[in-house]
Amino acid sequence: MGLHFDDLFVGQTFSAGPVTMERDRIISFAREFDPQPMHLSEEQAEASISGKLIASGWHTASVTMRLLVDGASPKLAGGSVGAGIEGITWPVPVVPGDVLSATSEIIELRESRSRPGRGLMKLKTTTTRADGTIVQTITAVIMVPKRPLI
Amino acid sequence: MGLHFDDLFVGQTFSAGPVTMERDRIISFAREFDPQPMHLSEEQAEASISGKLIASGWHTASVTMRLLVDGASPKLAGGSVGAGIEGITWPVPVVPGDVLSATSEIIELRESRSRPGRGLMKLKTTTTRADGTIVQTITAVIMVPKRPLI
Repeated sequence: MGLHFDDLFVGQTFSAGPVTMERDRIISFAREFDPQPMHLSEEQAEASISGKLIASGWHTASVTMRLLVDGASPKLAGGSVGAGIEGITWPVPVVPGDVLSATSEIIELRESRSRPGRGLMKLKTTTTRADGTIVQTITAVIMVPKRPLI
Repeated sequence: MGLHFDDLFVGQTFSAGPVTMERDRIISFAREFDPQPMHLSEEQAEASISGKLIASGWHTASVTMRLLVDGASPKLAGGSVGAGIEGITWPVPVVPGDVLSATSEIIELRESRSRPGRGLMKLKTTTTRADGTIVQTITAVIMVPKRPLI
């Protein structure tokens, strides 16, 4: 029923995908959450700073979260609760038709000082296109329950 | 038609909102992007680590992006292109009915070393409930065009 702090080790990796970034969902996501010219239509995007229709970075981040739930992160007991994000980069824009996968690596594990029953896992997730190009990196700190003593 | 690097100064603030976090959208966002028990229904959430239905942090981040476009960030010439995120925190969970607003402050401005026509703006955005409680902070680095010389 899910992993505990004691089951994890630094260097462990997890992967999921692929998922296709559909043009219509790129546009509808942007209409709701990021209505800027480069995300809304080919015509508006051509005249914008990007020169072409690209996905909102928050759409890519949200799709990556789905890939994390689908297997690109350890299945933790109680679910995955983020304590915070230490950084996101979007080195290359995502465009319609891009096929994305995510791979995560545990880069740090430490006991929580404030909460004895918990640990903290630092997870670095890389989201890539089918050709291996990195479109997003994210480093997250996630709370992980320890195995109950009884 | 939009602000340039030369128009901005450290300490400038921008605000937008409020927007209500609706229960049904919290759940439908989670079904697509973050299908974990604490985001999917009251029943599943009660048995989860959160103990109650809470919004995905990526939903809060996406709604905050919308508030940035709506006025919580400077209207830049060419639109707002993120170079990266330096950190996100979610100190308190967002629950159905929360009414969120966002306020941003320019905390740093510097010229781009690699691209002479551009500057970089560091923007710290705080998302708050109606009672002033902070539910998210995010520090973003955003590319800003300089005013053309001719």
